[in-house]
Order: sequence, then C-alpha cells, then structure tokens
Amino acid sequence: MCELLGMSANVPTDICFSFTGLVQRGGHTGPHTDGWGITFYEGKGCRSFKDPAPSAESEIAKMVLGYPIKSCAVISHIRQANRGSVCLENTHPFTRELWGQNWTYAHNGQLRGYKKLTAGFYRPVGETDSEIAFCWILEQLRQRYPRKPGRMTSVFSFIASLADELRQMGVFNMLLSNGDYVMAYCSNHLHWITRRAPFGQARLQDADMTVDFQTQTTPNDVVTVVATQPLTSNEDWQKMVPGEFALFRFGQLCLNRVSR
Amino acid sequence: MCELLGMSANVPTDICFSFTGLVQRGGHTGPHTDGWGITFYEGKGCRSFKDPAPSAESEIAKMVLGYPIKSCAVISHIRQANRGSVCLENTHPFTRELWGQNWTYAHNGQLRGYKKLTAGFYRPVGETDSEIAFCWILEQLRQRYPRKPGRMTSVFSFIASLADELRQMGVFNMLLSNGDYVMAYCSNHLHWITRRAPFGQARLQDADMTVDFQTQTTPNDVVTVVATQPLTSNEDWQKMVPGEFALFRFGQLCLNRVSR
Repeated sequence: MCELLGMSANVPTDICFSFTGLVQRGGHTGPHTDGWGITFYEGKGCRSFKDPAPSAESEIAKMVLGYPIKSCAVISHIRQANRGSVCLENTHPFTRELWGQNWTYAHNGQLRGYKKLTAGFYRPVGETDSEIAFCWILEQLRQRYPRKPGRMTSVFSFIASLADELRQMGVFNMLLSNGDYVMAYCSNHLHWITRRAPFGQARLQDADMTVDFQTQTTPNDVVTVVATQPLTSNEDWQKMVPGEFALFRFGQLCLNRVSR
Repeated sequence: MCELLGMSANVPTDICFSFTGLVQRGGHTGPHTDGWGITFYEGKGCRSFKDPAPSAESEIAKMVLGYPIKSCAVISHIRQANRGSVCLENTHPFTRELWGQNWTYAHNGQLRGYKKLTAGFYRPVGETDSEIAFCWILEQLRQRYPRKPGRMTSVFSFIASLADELRQMGVFNMLLSNGDYVMAYCSNHLHWITRRAPFGQARLQDADMTVDFQTQTTPNDVVTVVATQPLTSNEDWQKMVPGEFALFRFGQLCLNRVSR
C-alpha cells in the first residue's frame, strides 16, 4: 500500500504542514520507503518533485519542506512498491497532457489483470499497474471527448465510471487533477477535510507539530486536504466509502457520489 | 534570445559546474531573467526543476546547485521571453511521452507564422512558439513512425529535416533528448565540447570558478556539453554552423550533419 495526499484551495496555499506528516510515513511512522513525489499546479503549469529514495530521508523532500510552494491544487504520493521496481519512472504522481491541460494522477492499491488495459496513444514509460491504468483512463477520455468538453463535472463523472471498472480489478484509490479540479476516488481508504473560517489548531498524527491555521489564513480561505489516513489527530475527517468519489474545485466540494 | 545547455555522458555526471556558469546569465552576466529550467534523466525517468523567476536569484536553482544530481542526459534552458508571458507553463524544457519514452526539448530563437503548425494529438499547454513547434515535431514523428522504430539515428535525421523546415520560419536552435540521445540543432548560436582523458582544468567564463576535472573523473569518462555560448574561457569549443546538427549518445558524437 501507498499513501496519497491531495489539496484543493481557493487561494494559493502551502502544503508544508500536511506534507510534513506524510513524509514521516515514508520510513519513520510508516513502511512506504520506495519513493515519493509531489506535483504543484501554478496556473496551467505544474512542477513535480520526485525521489525514489524514502521520503523521511530524502534530500529533495527536505528542499520541498524548506521552500514553501503555494498552490491551489497539489497531488502527492509515497510509495510502497508492489508492481514495478523502485526507480524514478515508477514514482508517482504521473503527469500527461490532454486537451492542452496537464493531468496529474496518483494511485494507491494493486490491480490484477491490468495488462489487458490496452494502450493506445498514451504509452506507459515505467512498469507499474498504476501508470498503465492512467494511460487507459486518458485513452478512454480522448475517445469519448476528442475535443475539450465544456462541462467538466460530466467528465469527472465519466472518469468515476472508469474508476468503477478499475476497482473491479483490485484496489483503486486515486487522486486526479487538471489544475482546476481535484478528484478523489475511494476503493478502501481515503479521507478528506475542508478547513474554513473559523480556523482552529491542528495537531499532526505523525510528528510533534501543531499549527494554528488562524494565524496563516484569511477569513475567506477554503482549503480541502485529502489523505489515505487522517493526518491530524484533533480534527474530524470525512471517511469515504468504497466506490465513492468526491470532486473539489478551489477548496469546495462540488460533486459527490456514493457508490450505487 | 535564451540560452541552452545540454549534457551527454557515459557515466552519471553532475552538471553543477556548467549550470553554475549558465545561471549567472539569468540576471547577472546575461539578460535572461524570464525563468529557467533543467531536466535530468535517470533511467527511463526524468525529473525537471523549473522556475519563472530569474535563475541568478532562484531558490530552486540554489537547491539544484546544492544537491548534485548525476545523470547521463541533461537539458537546460534560461529564458528571455519573446513569445508568451512569464509563467510556469511557458518555461522550458518541455517533456512529452512518445513511444513510451520521455522526450525533452528546449528551444532558443523565435519563429514567424508558427500558428500554421497544426496541432494534432499533442496540444500546447502554454502559449510559446517553442512548445507549438515541439508538439508539431512529435506529431510528425508519430505519423512517420506509429511504433517505436529500431534505428534511432534515422529518427534523429528525420527530426533534423523537420528542424530545417522550422529554421525557415525564423531562428531555431534546439536541444532534444529521449534519455539515450542528446541532439543539438543549430540555427545561429550553438557550441559543444567533449571532455575525455587526459582531463584538465576548466575556468568558467561567467563566474570566478575553476574545476580540475581530473580529480572528479575516471579515465574512461566521456562527457559532452552543448551550450549557446562557450561556458569556459580556456577550452576549445566546437562552433556549430547554421543548419548543422550533432547527435550524442553517452557522451560520444555519433552523427553529425552540416547543412546542405
């Protein structure tokens, strides 16, 4: 199993606090020692930092923690390898272009029979089931929508139906973003929390660190964090159920479907 | 104009010395203050660091200089914007997948009439003539070679013929890599040097820094550096002529064509 972390916010927000908690699970409080990665959107562009080394010991993770990058959409992943060796090309998140947008994806879980997911235009660079599933999703999207569609919520509902198919093949927890939207799809473990005024204090589960969000925010800020397991010990996280998907835009929940 | 920097090596080599010289040109010794980027290959994977901020003042550039990443293929670029605003999505290098490989590209120059370069499968994310030209090159490659071809030198010769077409539209200096090969195409300014045993000392043109490569190398190392202008003041760089292309693999020149 791996751990996922995502953020959606209405103002550029740094993810240092949550990321501090997550990286502890990459070798200290958790067994996910097979690399990590994080992608930040800035406008239509995005930047990724990745390392096949354990996050708790990674020099690049220290750099990311020491230089707060503010973003409205972030996707991060720490890896415990099951399919594919430990190397850079197998490290999440994966980013590909579709309709002139950068799409970023991270997966937690394991799929059986994934080799039957045929590659079309998008070919995997690495060897993971995760990247093959991502290529397959993008391929289905292109076939269904050759041009960029107008209603993006319909697109994400369609992606959820694709995720339903993938969930039949094993465990498929997913975070996906095109920069504007952050989608969370739950197969077994995924939690989220939306923080807004009045802001309070939060205490990390995995490190001795407390933050008072009131000192770091304005009253209009809305920030949602999605994670495999709650990252704080004193807040109420929403637990997602198998087959549920949640879609966030600029911090707000804008679509939520519980499995039928 | 922008500045390009590329490296091809037969053993993983850090590019700190050359990059130190290049970043000075982003705000100190040169006018290229509109962002910079660098992409390192590691196996089939690659990692990019980019910043729309001037390289001479960039926190991320300091991080890259402080943490030597070793690679056999590197492409870097510092930007002086002509087409497209200063933002992350307009910052080179650009990386896209083709045939299950990461292809990385950086361009120096300016093209006229580039909007007639039709986008097919690959769509630009930003607004630069450079990214549109890259998408067009990849599109032509896919049409000519739907599957990954066996003889990569033929592929690069075909790319050179595409670059010839682009050069008719303005100035088109380019670096391109798929991780194994590094290709340099010259429109007006591009220089390269291959360093091998016996190694000597090199002195940077743009900063007070000298390196003794003999202390950092083994006798079998072969390292080629390509740059818009020579980065050192005491070595003989090969000046490329307009329309020339040079192809390097693991540090060695493997194909060279002077314009017909």
